[in-house]
Amino acid sequence: MSNKVIGTSVPRWDAWSKVCGKADYTADIPVKNMLYGKIVRATIAHGRVLSLDTQAALAVPGVLKVLTPADLPRVKHATAGHPYTLDRSGDVYDKNILTEDVRLYGDEIAAVIAETQLAADIAAQKITAVYEEYPIYLTAQEAMTEGAREIHEGTKGNILADTTAKVGNVEEGFALADYVFEDEHRTQVVQHCHMENQTATAFQSADGRWTCISSTQIPHICRRILGEALDMPWSSFRVIKPFIGGGFGNKQDVTIEPLVVAMSIAMGGRPVRLELEREEVLAYTRVRHAIHYRSKVGVSKDGKITAWQVDAVSKTGGYASHGHSVAAKGGGILCTLYEIPHMSFRSRTVLTNTGNAGAMRGYGVPQITFAIEAMTDKICKELQLDPFEFRLANFKKEGAPHPLNGIPMVTNKVADCLTLGRQRFGWDAKMADSGAKGGSVRRGVGVAAFSYATGVYPYSLEIAGCRLTLNQDGTVKMLVGATEIGQGIDTGLAQIAAETLGIPAEMVYAEETTDTDIAPFDTGAYASRQIYVTGVAVAKAAEELKDKICRAAGKFYEIPHSAADVEDAFVINSVTGERVASLGDLALRTYYDKARAQTLTAEVSHNCHDNSYPMGVTFAEVDVDTQTGVVTVRSILNAHDSGVIINPLLAKGQVEGGMGMAISYALGEDLFYDPKTGEPLNNNLLDYKMPTCMDTPELDCMFVEPEDPFGPFGAKGLGEPPICSPAAAIRNAVCHALGFEINALPLTPGKVFAAIQNNRGGGADV
Amino acid sequence: MSNKVIGTSVPRWDAWSKVCGKADYTADIPVKNMLYGKIVRATIAHGRVLSLDTQAALAVPGVLKVLTPADLPRVKHATAGHPYTLDRSGDVYDKNILTEDVRLYGDEIAAVIAETQLAADIAAQKITAVYEEYPIYLTAQEAMTEGAREIHEGTKGNILADTTAKVGNVEEGFALADYVFEDEHRTQVVQHCHMENQTATAFQSADGRWTCISSTQIPHICRRILGEALDMPWSSFRVIKPFIGGGFGNKQDVTIEPLVVAMSIAMGGRPVRLELEREEVLAYTRVRHAIHYRSKVGVSKDGKITAWQVDAVSKTGGYASHGHSVAAKGGGILCTLYEIPHMSFRSRTVLTNTGNAGAMRGYGVPQITFAIEAMTDKICKELQLDPFEFRLANFKKEGAPHPLNGIPMVTNKVADCLTLGRQRFGWDAKMADSGAKGGSVRRGVGVAAFSYATGVYPYSLEIAGCRLTLNQDGTVKMLVGATEIGQGIDTGLAQIAAETLGIPAEMVYAEETTDTDIAPFDTGAYASRQIYVTGVAVAKAAEELKDKICRAAGKFYEIPHSAADVEDAFVINSVTGERVASLGDLALRTYYDKARAQTLTAEVSHNCHDNSYPMGVTFAEVDVDTQTGVVTVRSILNAHDSGVIINPLLAKGQVEGGMGMAISYALGEDLFYDPKTGEPLNNNLLDYKMPTCMDTPELDCMFVEPEDPFGPFGAKGLGEPPICSPAAAIRNAVCHALGFEINALPLTPGKVFAAIQNNRGGGADV
Repeated sequence: MSNKVIGTSVPRWDAWSKVCGKADYTADIPVKNMLYGKIVRATIAHGRVLSLDTQAALAVPGVLKVLTPADLPRVKHATAGHPYTLDRSGDVYDKNILTEDVRLYGDEIAAVIAETQLAADIAAQKITAVYEEYPIYLTAQEAMTEGAREIHEGTKGNILADTTAKVGNVEEGFALADYVFEDEHRTQVVQHCHMENQTATAFQSADGRWTCISSTQIPHICRRILGEALDMPWSSFRVIKPFIGGGFGNKQDVTIEPLVVAMSIAMGGRPVRLELEREEVLAYTRVRHAIHYRSKVGVSKDGKITAWQVDAVSKTGGYASHGHSVAAKGGGILCTLYEIPHMSFRSRTVLTNTGNAGAMRGYGVPQITFAIEAMTDKICKELQLDPFEFRLANFKKEGAPHPLNGIPMVTNKVADCLTLGRQRFGWDAKMADSGAKGGSVRRGVGVAAFSYATGVYPYSLEIAGCRLTLNQDGTVKMLVGATEIGQGIDTGLAQIAAETLGIPAEMVYAEETTDTDIAPFDTGAYASRQIYVTGVAVAKAAEELKDKICRAAGKFYEIPHSAADVEDAFVINSVTGERVASLGDLALRTYYDKARAQTLTAEVSHNCHDNSYPMGVTFAEVDVDTQTGVVTVRSILNAHDSGVIINPLLAKGQVEGGMGMAISYALGEDLFYDPKTGEPLNNNLLDYKMPTCMDTPELDCMFVEPEDPFGPFGAKGLGEPPICSPAAAIRNAVCHALGFEINALPLTPGKVFAAIQNNRGGGADV
Repeated sequence: MSNKVIGTSVPRWDAWSKVCGKADYTADIPVKNMLYGKIVRATIAHGRVLSLDTQAALAVPGVLKVLTPADLPRVKHATAGHPYTLDRSGDVYDKNILTEDVRLYGDEIAAVIAETQLAADIAAQKITAVYEEYPIYLTAQEAMTEGAREIHEGTKGNILADTTAKVGNVEEGFALADYVFEDEHRTQVVQHCHMENQTATAFQSADGRWTCISSTQIPHICRRILGEALDMPWSSFRVIKPFIGGGFGNKQDVTIEPLVVAMSIAMGGRPVRLELEREEVLAYTRVRHAIHYRSKVGVSKDGKITAWQVDAVSKTGGYASHGHSVAAKGGGILCTLYEIPHMSFRSRTVLTNTGNAGAMRGYGVPQITFAIEAMTDKICKELQLDPFEFRLANFKKEGAPHPLNGIPMVTNKVADCLTLGRQRFGWDAKMADSGAKGGSVRRGVGVAAFSYATGVYPYSLEIAGCRLTLNQDGTVKMLVGATEIGQGIDTGLAQIAAETLGIPAEMVYAEETTDTDIAPFDTGAYASRQIYVTGVAVAKAAEELKDKICRAAGKFYEIPHSAADVEDAFVINSVTGERVASLGDLALRTYYDKARAQTLTAEVSHNCHDNSYPMGVTFAEVDVDTQTGVVTVRSILNAHDSGVIINPLLAKGQVEGGMGMAISYALGEDLFYDPKTGEPLNNNLLDYKMPTCMDTPELDCMFVEPEDPFGPFGAKGLGEPPICSPAAAIRNAVCHALGFEINALPLTPGKVFAAIQNNRGGGADV
């Protein structure tokens, strides 16, 4: 039977309410008797607070309290939204809610609670600190220097982790090579710039526990981290996620919730709201890791990769946050994109006195893809190989096992993405049309492929849950712990439920909030996991509910339950095809039959032991003005294999959003720190340049849709893939236009212009 | 194994928050952008609105809209919070949200929506109506008069229903009698006077549906009635019940919710709050039925009842509301209290142009008990029989089937209540001490017994649900659709869950709100059903969760799951008695074991096919001042068989609350209507006299606790029983003091004084 709901562009259920301003985000939710918090931040990047003067702050009218580290539990917690491990090996517990030990400019050293936001803001500015200052390390290279002070005591050389992922024996691989290529690539620090800043409100609930309404991607994880950070039983907390204005990984760290709950505790349970300003979000929440790659690739005469060695140094800022996992992920990406018989992928994650890096859409993959596909481009150019043929010859084959974890990559249509995308993009015509275009403009085309994964299995726990309830009129209420953060996951999950149940998607009601007291356990929105992991939980719950519906049909109608089925919201006899009753009629009986009533619900907790691999390719055509260094993307196409697409319109939205972020990553965004003080220099949206819609070219996308056997209805992850390859493709197109390589992002006019002067572009230390 | 949690006075979980003012009731919940509603009420008691002038109202600044009947669906709905029947036979669908047909003074003829409550109130007063007036019928007798106009077209003689419940053949019974006694008894109209007035807020949710936050006893039923009243699919509505300040049955009718939702719909989804004033609640929500009983009892020489005939006429006001069920319930009460071989119980429910009667704590039983026990008292006096011996000889025997529905009354300790209560009360000493006490005071003692039922099976649907979730730290979240309205049901249910699970009650978290989108289906708070019906759902869910816990223990520890048990929040080996692990440790594994995680939840929908019979006896000692007619209750004891008591402190609270209401019912409360206009005369708390704590004597209670086989841990209902017999016992004590009968309630000084003049007290037509 063909799908009726899956693959259709069901409008997202919350679209109209967002357009009409009816959707309440955290700061929109009215709270009585509320107080306001403000964080007091260090004005040095490395050192120790010797004393704090809070007198002037406390004298500000409306100020009720100033919290200092001494007022809070001394226990350290990990802020990363990882799923947790029973042996607690998964995270670095290095963060106090407030600290005397300053590790980055803006570190949280105190907090003000006041009756108005203005009073809190004014008071925070009046708090002065006396510091003992230490040398600051703004690059990983500086931090790793012999004799550098340990930013966290005990972290030798400030290296949080130093690991090497290996396939085969890279020395043997290079021995087999006819050609060896080496180069270095660098990426910059960028920030997520979600529309809604981090905001949370905490208060004591009527049951004496602590409720935190928060703009978080990970309510259930947030609850756990509150318990860890505040050293209280985890169920002391209830985290409620309302509508969210984006997260992109930044809200996969728990950055403000422990403090705002601590504030409410300090105020005897009175509600306190803590809402970061854009300046704070840009500089003091999380950023994307800047990574420096040194790559060496061996290629045989017949155009096959024989060995690939990478040495990656990743700058993680003042705290571990997601720790080493972002940098380390690159190894798995490299060896699943290409068939590499001998690989060595060393990665080091280094603490520095800069903004804390954490999860950001793509989780290290835009960086490694930039390095991989720049190397691929170099190889093809230097050996005069066709970039399509070279890639097709070296792509990892469909069905091959993941070299590092052994899970077969059952579906992998990267080759189709490349081939079909080439046609759709009109690559050959564009290639023919490239070169000097008159005046100072040169035109080029570039292509880049990427590999990704869905969720975190087998490296971490994958678990999701769903509860479905059949309403009296045959509609269905869906509760999931997955987190709608603007991406439309609720709509996709509702489609899965509807398809499974045999009803239209409009008959499934998603829940507006994710409430840890109510929502089935699910680790949340990250790793492009929700359709894939939660989707299976939803499908399983829907199967269970449908089975119960069919059994109820057997009870209430003259039909064996084994013959009952549901189609178009009618109970049908699947043998005769006849409609037996509307689902609403059956539902009513399950509620109100005096002798046999039993409301139908189904709840499933799904422990996922699968992984599947979304793949894709970006094609880009650019103009480079050699007099100004300005790069203009003329056209760009993302071709994705994310398995079966549940909702084409929402998928297109995801891809276009990711491409937009990626173009900006390629061409403009860069977060700077004052080299002397470590103070963020452009942490505002005037100086940190985000593209507007005027800056964004037409975005094109296409989907190759193999039916993945593990994902629900054949789907694989799509949230992060769109951002992985555009920067690399644009870089390749720019290099094609210019005829030489630029090996650092972003490709700002200044950098491009300087490169034109040198016939080569590099970048500064990360 | 003896109980650890059941039978202990666990403090109610919400006590501290209520004491501290942290518990949010409907009107406390902050809502943005809110509008205010006000009902425009008819100023005649019977007639038709010919025209409405809304001009002046619309000119009041801040007034946005006036709704009239023409603006609303013309469909009629039933307001009663009955469980619903598939054939819709259970209710009378006679109510429009707003009406042109006025059936009682204060009927809802229009509604104002404004930006402030003040503007709405002022505007409502400016709306004038031109009426066609009809004759008004303020008593059932008047309404039944030949030729009286039908208050609802088609209701012949204004008799809503006329039914007779029969046991045996009453004529044969009287033929067997040696003595026959006849008399009439009348009860008055009283009102619930819950602390929190009816209040509801409605708005359009982000999903386009309609949310109604309401102080309702019956959220799930309210949702259904919204669908019926507004002629929309039932799942279009979401009803959320926060903390409630009492209901006593008045909030078992859906009185304001359809209008407030209609108001929000009219305002494009903007939130609207409708909060009744005390004057409106007293006169225009629901009241207790005034009932006139004509009784005839046959008794044999050996003191056995041979026949009992009752003709009851019940005044129900302008709308059916609960219809005939309140009056008709008396038959079942009569024949389950006493063994009556031949019974005929006729009841007529009559529409009148007075305040609408509906459910009120006791649901007709205080009335019929007054009539039964006044007759019993009369028989004992006239035949000079000992009132204890007569009752013991005639009480229905434990284990006997219910004469009308056949369900065996498996536990029935009314005889023990009588015997043990007699001792505790010190009846014999008090009896000896009765009579003239000097001055104008005469002292008397009285006793009265009652029978009740738990829930509504087999007459209506009985269904309840519970979902339990094991949290990471071993605590448990409990979701039920049962409705905490101040009685403490959540705490009792948490005890049932805790006892079953083997954990302390503090480890079970109840949910603050009942939300129809979330809470398992349950029909709500009425019929003393929740501990009995929902309690079984909770126990079943807890058994299921415990089984899952034991299976998980078998998975995670070296112990066969069949040997696993939980005791004091530890997983134990029930064979060796050893503690295997804390429940928290096991819970953590169920969440985070990478290979085998599966969060543990259990959800049960329980269709109850049982009924059990709470019984009891009240003993009262009074002083009557014959010069003033003032009755003072000197001491009073309620002895209850409500099965096993789950929480003695909360049970005591329930009983004392019920006794307080009953004393006031016996001695003072009475709602008056102007005989010319039908306008309520004392619908305010200055003129309608509620007792204060200074007016209330010391209240004593005791429990006889048979273990009922059907109720959870042996419990039967207790919510309503306390109010059933005190008025009858006080009346009997007053009659004992005075030496003659007074056969109408309430026993106000005026009525008692007048009776003293006549040596007999009756009452006016009801």
